[in-house]
Amino acid sequence: VSSLSPAQLICMEFPPAAERFCEIVVEAGLLSRLGECLRGYLSAKTRLLLVTDACVAKLYLDSALESLVATGFEVYPYVVPGGEGSKSLAQAQGVYEAAIQAGLGRQDAMLALGGGVVGDLTGFCASTYHRGIPVIQIPTTLLAQVDSAIGGKTAVNAGEIKNGVGTFHQPRAVLVDPQVLMSLSERERAAGMGEVLKYGLIERSCLGAGTAESLQSLNSSPENSLWELLKCRIDAQGLTVATDPELLRRCAALKASVVCRDEFETLGLRYFLNLGHTFGHAYESLSQYDFLHGEAVAIGLLKAVQLAVRLGQAHASLETDLRRMLTHLGLSPSLSQAQHYAPELLLAKMRQDKKNHHGRIRLILPTAITGFVETRDDIDDDLLLEILAYKESA
Amino acid sequence: VSSLSPAQLICMEFPPAAERFCEIVVEAGLLSRLGECLRGYLSAKTRLLLVTDACVAKLYLDSALESLVATGFEVYPYVVPGGEGSKSLAQAQGVYEAAIQAGLGRQDAMLALGGGVVGDLTGFCASTYHRGIPVIQIPTTLLAQVDSAIGGKTAVNAGEIKNGVGTFHQPRAVLVDPQVLMSLSERERAAGMGEVLKYGLIERSCLGAGTAESLQSLNSSPENSLWELLKCRIDAQGLTVATDPELLRRCAALKASVVCRDEFETLGLRYFLNLGHTFGHAYESLSQYDFLHGEAVAIGLLKAVQLAVRLGQAHASLETDLRRMLTHLGLSPSLSQAQHYAPELLLAKMRQDKKNHHGRIRLILPTAITGFVETRDDIDDDLLLEILAYKESA
Repeated sequence: VSSLSPAQLICMEFPPAAERFCEIVVEAGLLSRLGECLRGYLSAKTRLLLVTDACVAKLYLDSALESLVATGFEVYPYVVPGGEGSKSLAQAQGVYEAAIQAGLGRQDAMLALGGGVVGDLTGFCASTYHRGIPVIQIPTTLLAQVDSAIGGKTAVNAGEIKNGVGTFHQPRAVLVDPQVLMSLSERERAAGMGEVLKYGLIERSCLGAGTAESLQSLNSSPENSLWELLKCRIDAQGLTVATDPELLRRCAALKASVVCRDEFETLGLRYFLNLGHTFGHAYESLSQYDFLHGEAVAIGLLKAVQLAVRLGQAHASLETDLRRMLTHLGLSPSLSQAQHYAPELLLAKMRQDKKNHHGRIRLILPTAITGFVETRDDIDDDLLLEILAYKESA
Repeated sequence: VSSLSPAQLICMEFPPAAERFCEIVVEAGLLSRLGECLRGYLSAKTRLLLVTDACVAKLYLDSALESLVATGFEVYPYVVPGGEGSKSLAQAQGVYEAAIQAGLGRQDAMLALGGGVVGDLTGFCASTYHRGIPVIQIPTTLLAQVDSAIGGKTAVNAGEIKNGVGTFHQPRAVLVDPQVLMSLSERERAAGMGEVLKYGLIERSCLGAGTAESLQSLNSSPENSLWELLKCRIDAQGLTVATDPELLRRCAALKASVVCRDEFETLGLRYFLNLGHTFGHAYESLSQYDFLHGEAVAIGLLKAVQLAVRLGQAHASLETDLRRMLTHLGLSPSLSQAQHYAPELLLAKMRQDKKNHHGRIRLILPTAITGFVETRDDIDDDLLLEILAYKESA
């Protein structure tokens, strides 16, 4: 870790105790020297339960174990099946049993090597095993690297409710190796870009600039904004942008900034990160997870932008731009597929969202100033149904 | 709540946010006006999932529901089977499903009406459902009223490891009705006295007086100590003392005092509350929960005292006094039964304790000053085996 330039490190600190912090490291090739990197966070005596899924195990488990053992760690691997089905209490039970078998105590740690499913499941188990032991996140998908591995939200699915059961438990560190993205399918990379686009649409809300004047000045220099950057680069390069370390770091820093100021989602700041997710979760759940999470988020972003435009609170050009970028990223098939779900069923799913307050559906929506979002819970069902029923022209 | 005298209320406050607090109310007849009492903590719009076990349901569910509905709450009961077996992930899944069915959102709450099993299970589910919703503890056993319902520890058992999975999640309030203790069996009341005796043995450590001088002055006036009070009253009245509200309040206040200063067990203060528990858990687990928790704790207290006497750090009279009190409370059969477990198996169980650090068994042991305890992890296996092999003379 000492060899890293400050630019490669993002440090999050949490109140009240000074020892609660989380470092995010983004560095190409990090995975090949994982053991060395972990020694910055854990003593050599630490026993490790390394949780991963079958797909990631095939690619990276051997080299990860080799590096960890070479550094002196006692490490036990536990491999879960790939896919959303592993985010269950039954699978959590399996992780607990593996931890007991490995003899993990309170001073030991779990490692999550994988995408959002492995990260959420392992985080949940680490936060509840012996009432909480340390966890290190080593995300291997774009989505996990810019979003789900950062911020301490853990989850398993409860019945049909996605993330219905979970905790807040900050990882000791999030170790991001952009090189692993090269082994993802195009579909997975494109899906992850859903979350990247989200950051473009919420950047200013994340940074917390608030007065009308500061808005004005920000708006007059849009060329520095993440949204403008994404627009230029995606229009020019398409999906190639997905593996750029600078882009990963910029998104991770935005998430870190929000999470540090609203760790437990009590101040409403973390809600911004849910842009597109209330719509998205409904599609994801109704499709029985045929949609990847990032694909569902991409659909949800477009629905949120459409709704904001329809309400007159965002410019029509935002919708045009977003649709074009989604197309350049290869996400058109998801938009087409989304049209086949019945608006009434989608609305019923949206009603089950955790953010809802006293039965009102709570949405994050873009505003006229790109990068700023607001929370609304006063949208009529009829208007929501109309947005959900919208057909993309072929 | 407004009708209560300050003496009936114990208020716990937690850093850093002022809104994190827990009130403990001890009041005879409280259960019959539960709804009114809850209105002090929850808005009338709150949906409630009331979790209880089959045995408690038979006695109190109807009247509790009646009181809650009369006060305007929308309440859904969920009844689990009685016994330690319900402290499982499988049963947690049942609670989550009931909560989803009832449509509970983040602003809603769970109620735990029952003993330690119901309290731990419901607390765990409330702390993880939607990443945490409020819980109110309404303990109906002596053990839960003075100990397990207070302090925010939640748990389910993981495989053979008791409380292997859990969280810290402070209840909004702990509502204690001493009258319900009258419906307990003698066995249950006697078991609960195990935890009461524990408070007598750790009182001064709980209150945190530390200097040699303050110890001296405390020691010169032992007549005010909880231990002396218990000795006099148990020798005179036996198990009758179990339902005394003053005694309940004194124990609850001791627990509250420790928990407020060491909420997450990071400072070692909460360890004091584990006096007798490392031994006790081993007996409880090996007996496959034939021992009630309080019975196992009572056995564990005697083992800890014996060990301290054997080490020369406590007076032999402490062991004599404790054994006599346990006899007066009707706990002799448990002591006899304990002799039938193999020391080696008990020691193996003790090795799995969550408190252990780098493989050393960590024990809380009495000292020469009654009421003060200390943490030790340097006890030889041979000595432990000797203590575990000790046979009570018939």
